Amino acid sequence: MKLNLEDASYLIHIAFDEDVKEGDITTQNIVPIDRSTTATMQAKEAGIIAGLEVAKEVFKYQNDEVIFYPMVEDGQWVDKGEVIATITGPYGVLLTSERIALNFLQRMSGIATETHKYVKGTEGTKAKILDTRKTLPAYRSLDKYAVYAGGGTNHRFGLFDMVMIKDNHIKMAGSITKAVNQVRCHIPNSIKIEVETTNFGEVQEAVAAEVDIIMLDNMDNNLTRKCVEFVNGRAKVEASGNMTVDRIESVAKTGVDFISVGAITHSVKALDISMNIID
Amino acid sequence: MKLNLEDASYLIHIAFDEDVKEGDITTQNIVPIDRSTTATMQAKEAGIIAGLEVAKEVFKYQNDEVIFYPMVEDGQWVDKGEVIATITGPYGVLLTSERIALNFLQRMSGIATETHKYVKGTEGTKAKILDTRKTLPAYRSLDKYAVYAGGGTNHRFGLFDMVMIKDNHIKMAGSITKAVNQVRCHIPNSIKIEVETTNFGEVQEAVAAEVDIIMLDNMDNNLTRKCVEFVNGRAKVEASGNMTVDRIESVAKTGVDFISVGAITHSVKALDISMNIID
Amino acid sequence: MKLNLEDASYLIHIAFDEDVKEGDITTQNIVPIDRSTTATMQAKEAGIIAGLEVAKEVFKYQNDEVIFYPMVEDGQWVDKGEVIATITGPYGVLLTSERIALNFLQRMSGIATETHKYVKGTEGTKAKILDTRKTLPAYRSLDKYAVYAGGGTNHRFGLFDMVMIKDNHIKMAGSITKAVNQVRCHIPNSIKIEVETTNFGEVQEAVAAEVDIIMLDNMDNNLTRKCVEFVNGRAKVEASGNMTVDRIESVAKTGVDFISVGAITHSVKALDISMNIID
Amino acid sequence: MKLNLEDASYLIHIAFDEDVKEGDITTQNIVPIDRSTTATMQAKEAGIIAGLEVAKEVFKYQNDEVIFYPMVEDGQWVDKGEVIATITGPYGVLLTSERIALNFLQRMSGIATETHKYVKGTEGTKAKILDTRKTLPAYRSLDKYAVYAGGGTNHRFGLFDMVMIKDNHIKMAGSITKAVNQVRCHIPNSIKIEVETTNFGEVQEAVAAEVDIIMLDNMDNNLTRKCVEFVNGRAKVEASGNMTVDRIESVAKTGVDFISVGAITHSVKALDISMNIID
Amino acid sequence: MKLNLEDASYLIHIAFDEDVKEGDITTQNIVPIDRSTTATMQAKEAGIIAGLEVAKEVFKYQNDEVIFYPMVEDGQWVDKGEVIATITGPYGVLLTSERIALNFLQRMSGIATETHKYVKGTEGTKAKILDTRKTLPAYRSLDKYAVYAGGGTNHRFGLFDMVMIKDNHIKMAGSITKAVNQVRCHIPNSIKIEVETTNFGEVQEAVAAEVDIIMLDNMDNNLTRKCVEFVNGRAKVEASGNMTVDRIESVAKTGVDFISVGAITHSVKALDISMNIID
Amino acid sequence: MKLNLEDASYLIHIAFDEDVKEGDITTQNIVPIDRSTTATMQAKEAGIIAGLEVAKEVFKYQNDEVIFYPMVEDGQWVDKGEVIATITGPYGVLLTSERIALNFLQRMSGIATETHKYVKGTEGTKAKILDTRKTLPAYRSLDKYAVYAGGGTNHRFGLFDMVMIKDNHIKMAGSITKAVNQVRCHIPNSIKIEVETTNFGEVQEAVAAEVDIIMLDNMDNNLTRKCVEFVNGRAKVEASGNMTVDRIESVAKTGVDFISVGAITHSVKALDISMNIID
Repeated sequence: MKLNLEDASYLIHIAFDEDVKEGDITTQNIVPIDRSTTATMQAKEAGIIAGLEVAKEVFKYQNDEVIFYPMVEDGQWVDKGEVIATITGPYGVLLTSERIALNFLQRMSGIATETHKYVKGTEGTKAKILDTRKTLPAYRSLDKYAVYAGGGTNHRFGLFDMVMIKDNHIKMAGSITKAVNQVRCHIPNSIKIEVETTNFGEVQEAVAAEVDIIMLDNMDNNLTRKCVEFVNGRAKVEASGNMTVDRIESVAKTGVDFISVGAITHSVKALDISMNIID
Repeated sequence: MKLNLEDASYLIHIAFDEDVKEGDITTQNIVPIDRSTTATMQAKEAGIIAGLEVAKEVFKYQNDEVIFYPMVEDGQWVDKGEVIATITGPYGVLLTSERIALNFLQRMSGIATETHKYVKGTEGTKAKILDTRKTLPAYRSLDKYAVYAGGGTNHRFGLFDMVMIKDNHIKMAGSITKAVNQVRCHIPNSIKIEVETTNFGEVQEAVAAEVDIIMLDNMDNNLTRKCVEFVNGRAKVEASGNMTVDRIESVAKTGVDFISVGAITHSVKALDISMNIID
Repeated sequence: MKLNLEDASYLIHIAFDEDVKEGDITTQNIVPIDRSTTATMQAKEAGIIAGLEVAKEVFKYQNDEVIFYPMVEDGQWVDKGEVIATITGPYGVLLTSERIALNFLQRMSGIATETHKYVKGTEGTKAKILDTRKTLPAYRSLDKYAVYAGGGTNHRFGLFDMVMIKDNHIKMAGSITKAVNQVRCHIPNSIKIEVETTNFGEVQEAVAAEVDIIMLDNMDNNLTRKCVEFVNGRAKVEASGNMTVDRIESVAKTGVDFISVGAITHSVKALDISMNIID
Repeated sequence: MKLNLEDASYLIHIAFDEDVKEGDITTQNIVPIDRSTTATMQAKEAGIIAGLEVAKEVFKYQNDEVIFYPMVEDGQWVDKGEVIATITGPYGVLLTSERIALNFLQRMSGIATETHKYVKGTEGTKAKILDTRKTLPAYRSLDKYAVYAGGGTNHRFGLFDMVMIKDNHIKMAGSITKAVNQVRCHIPNSIKIEVETTNFGEVQEAVAAEVDIIMLDNMDNNLTRKCVEFVNGRAKVEASGNMTVDRIESVAKTGVDFISVGAITHSVKALDISMNIID
Repeated sequence: MKLNLEDASYLIHIAFDEDVKEGDITTQNIVPIDRSTTATMQAKEAGIIAGLEVAKEVFKYQNDEVIFYPMVEDGQWVDKGEVIATITGPYGVLLTSERIALNFLQRMSGIATETHKYVKGTEGTKAKILDTRKTLPAYRSLDKYAVYAGGGTNHRFGLFDMVMIKDNHIKMAGSITKAVNQVRCHIPNSIKIEVETTNFGEVQEAVAAEVDIIMLDNMDNNLTRKCVEFVNGRAKVEASGNMTVDRIESVAKTGVDFISVGAITHSVKALDISMNIID
Repeated sequence: MKLNLEDASYLIHIAFDEDVKEGDITTQNIVPIDRSTTATMQAKEAGIIAGLEVAKEVFKYQNDEVIFYPMVEDGQWVDKGEVIATITGPYGVLLTSERIALNFLQRMSGIATETHKYVKGTEGTKAKILDTRKTLPAYRSLDKYAVYAGGGTNHRFGLFDMVMIKDNHIKMAGSITKAVNQVRCHIPNSIKIEVETTNFGEVQEAVAAEVDIIMLDNMDNNLTRKCVEFVNGRAKVEASGNMTVDRIESVAKTGVDFISVGAITHSVKALDISMNIID
């Protein structure tokens, strides 16, 4: 997945609007406009870095001649104290942009770092860690990019790009089969269909309806394994529901194709990063 | 502080744009457009609620006739299982809007709940908990509102509405006195000046420069107490730096006016809330 | 497929901006502002109607109290002389909006009518008529809706929602297999993959690469039939290239799932429709 | 008439938004970002080219360093097979932009080519071919530019920049004279007045009212000739109504100043043009 | 001329954004949200009122239920102390909107009042007072509307809707005749041509070139009279240059059709108006 | 105060949109696109210049390669006939941009010049001239910048950045003390509080309420002096109400900190400036 720089630019624009508006009245009245300097961004704790291009855009927002030189790449593990990037440009621009850049970078790196913990739990299996729609409003593409940087796989982007038939839809339509048929004749030929199931019977019905992906909602590992065996490649299988780092390995070993995790985006601990003027 | 509904509306607009775009292709092809229902929002863990008006706007975004009826008010404590609000309207609108509403409400309530823990630590003192600029880009006003709902006091909104002279500014100007004077002649008469200090000498200089607020950066409680006594009401005093819930009581007892806490907004654990169709 | 009213509203806004700007200086200086009237929209030739909701939005753009009452539905065949809708509202609003409404309605109905001719050619087969990306810039969603109204099936919306590997991509990657593999690890699990093929060998390779859809580019009916038999349900098959109404029946009978036609959107003959003040 | 690049840029922006959005997921995952190439645009049928600057803007939209080198000028006739332009730049940018560029260029060249057929019919007379308001919503300025490139003359831009008194206005005001007087006192001194007439008496009245242009609506050539003679230079005369290429010469010879033709913009056959990677 | 409410709405939106932003922090924290009141707008000096609809929009901006009841109409003379309008609605909305409404109304009424003085000087002649392009950026349509309300006639809106050939254009083209011819073949048939002249010879040349309007730049009354006689209705004549209220009568009597005055819009004295809460 | 170039850019964008739209149809059809020239801007009367950067932005709006070379600085006094700036660039761009540039520069210089007259009246005292909210809608930041350039001091920007308790607020709250307390608990710690007073008792109450600034509304000089002495540095004091250049010296000598003047922005006489092509 590529970073959607347009979405990022949009948020950056709002960020400067809300934080700086008419100007950083402290810096602009103290720091000479022609004074340049160099700073480093440093990890104050270990983790996966994500969002370097966003940070770069932030520093270039006020002055396109700022040089943001990344020392690592998105998706890379850094140790505590490691220098992530150096930034050279007008002293005032660096001071004014610092907090906005860190606000983005710390969240995105926090997501990548947490995702990475789940991905490690799937090693040796074919299971991939999926994100969910529990992202922060306006941050869908940045959050998903951070998951990707942490080694995760992206699920559908939203409600528009894939059919996901859930309990309420099934109840409304009468059955999984009816729900699938109702949708199929109205959608473009590019759209996949996923169905949420809660028991073995529903899995059987979903396979018969020729859906593309079957989600197993909150099933235990035994039932999950049974379903995987039954499906036997006729659709992809996704495990979902209250995943924790501790559970992940055992779920992955059931043979599912995907495990989706909401917490990696809805409760984010910022990775501790700081900027220091070195000159 | 009033919720800035315009900022919220903006994020809501983006949220629907990124999540729904051309439409919720599952729901719109299954749920009859004229089918109505009622749902509840329920706390799945205890905490302070914030963001009910935002949630209401979300549900009304697609159809202004949806009725969102709050059972509690922003800033109020709810127990696990408590119903927060009921929502009545088109079934499809409720399904499509559910996740966006929860994504907002869970973050805002998470911030309010965490703020509340710090505020409790200041009881019996005059110290107020302040937020910082470590908010999520584009969420400045929502994050600050959630802090306010949790009992906190808002600090400056951004770089534009108050002067905050920090270490780099002081180094650049030559001294606190010089920095203050350089700024003073260029700003409107409505702007306050705060200075960040790291030792007693700087506090003395700040008082002499007649600044409005003095920030004590990472000082221990003894030094803090000494500074507060010295200032003696000639300026407001703010303690800052690596605050935790455990430390807060002892800091508050030093007599400072304000304690600022970055973590309440930069690392947010979503409060667990769910929506259930009850009909 | 639902009409994307937001996209339509956008174009309507531009349409009024370019056509009316500061005002219809003829009508506003002659027609009393409180004078109401009723008009009909009438087909001056037979065809399929599409775009009634767009026309309605146009008439309501200047005054939300205009009543647009459709006598037929989108997708319905009308004969020459048939009344399509009646409109009641301020006389001046009707005069000012007439041309914009017709400009939309005549194009959309023109597309639907032409699509319908192709769809009739597929009767008795499973083949569906697909649109292409040869739509007018800014009209993607309206053009696709009109195709749908004419009985067609929508292909991918654009370059972002489905992988379509064409000749240049294959050349660049080295082979179909390599191209498919390069893409697969970077895309969300919701995305389908289609490959363009020009001979039997490529079709074999595409099947082996487990793609979702295989496009047969400019193949004759014999080769098409051979490919369809070989694929045998392991992927969907799409015929493409210089389709005309005359050819469509024979192509449909080869057993392909889809036939895509560019001309239905890139060269549109407006359906003749007029508005008449009846009062 | 100059091409309104701002309007074009706007449509280009929407075009990329609807077609590419987060990215061309096929090309970006296969074509190396630093790989460059050269392509040609070639006419696959003869006609008048219009829209080269728009095509250039499209190719430069994603990367300003793309070199678009036109081999002909707007308004120039090209033969089948003739190279219209060469384009050099990043391979991926060329692939992603190709269809959008062609979608614009083919419509605009289609309009210019059709206009040219009408203009040829007026050779040897003073009659000029005018466009109408039957343009595609949001394409007013591009459609009009294409008419101009094909040798036509532009009529008023919309309802705001010239008074055009039609049958309904006359009925409402009571007479042509009353309608003209009602309008005249409310408009700036820069605005011309045209009146639509359907018989000789109305033409006489329009001349008496000192209007700037008189439109003869659906009159036959004899009546047209009589009106032209009567007006005798006291106003400009425009023939209008169901013009075809076949009729144009005889209408032009009646001595009218203008002939307006709706079909050149409301029913456009795309000129066949293709892009080929040559390297 | 109709007031362009869209332009006004735009400025009103900016006005609230710059003045109120997150809120009127005084009023919103003191005045109960459900408290209503009534106020009057009163002229504190005599003059012509213009901009009542703008003021109404301002008061309705925050709350559509505010009732703005005008006691006079735009273009009407009011005496000192006369009540112009009453406003009823939420107390807080009235307080917050007061200054913005007055800022608009006082400027527009100031323009209308000054225009009126010039118009009175033309009584008994056919001369009309024209505005110029010396309006405040972003206020073109409001300023022109105020001139119209004061009894003036609007000149061209801008550089786009009428040709105005000035000294530099003539020098560049070589002569008035050449300048007119160069322009004529590139413009729509709806556009008028005006030429600026500084001596009798240029007036003769302009008449020969069949322009629509001839501007006499800074000519004295004798020369003006001579030019008017020479033109003799073959074009309209406009006097221009350093007009004052004192000069206007003598200029009007020369027989010119138009007199243009820059000062009525470039140097505006606000008409003194106040709002008073009466309840 | 720094010029807010973003606000200026916005107005410049609207200015070109309203004045030029599709193009300066005179200039673009006469002046060759590759013809360059040089012009000067000259003061036709003496005054303070303000807005040079805005004028520069205007000239660069259509072509970034225009060179605008200022001969003076904002805030500097110029004599009649003095050259303010030279501009070199495409001849057509200079002609098209001239009026917009002058419209900005003449207003801003007019404000600065008038402000300067008031500032001169305060020489030898500590009193500073303040602006008010009586600025033109959408011009708040430009008007305030011009006041600053003329030697004035800026008051609060709007209703959002400082509390200003006026007569109606006091009446609503019950007393100054109550009003201050009601506000204080809801605002960020960065906001100052000002109270409007009309007699000595209110000044006493305001001091007791520990407000930051006390405004004396329409008090005579004796009462003003008495209030200043009573306040004695416990708050800043602002004199307000019907200030004229003649009164200013005597008011300044009462010892107030600030004198606010509405007329410098609500009734602006443009400074006479012209542009001349010199080549």
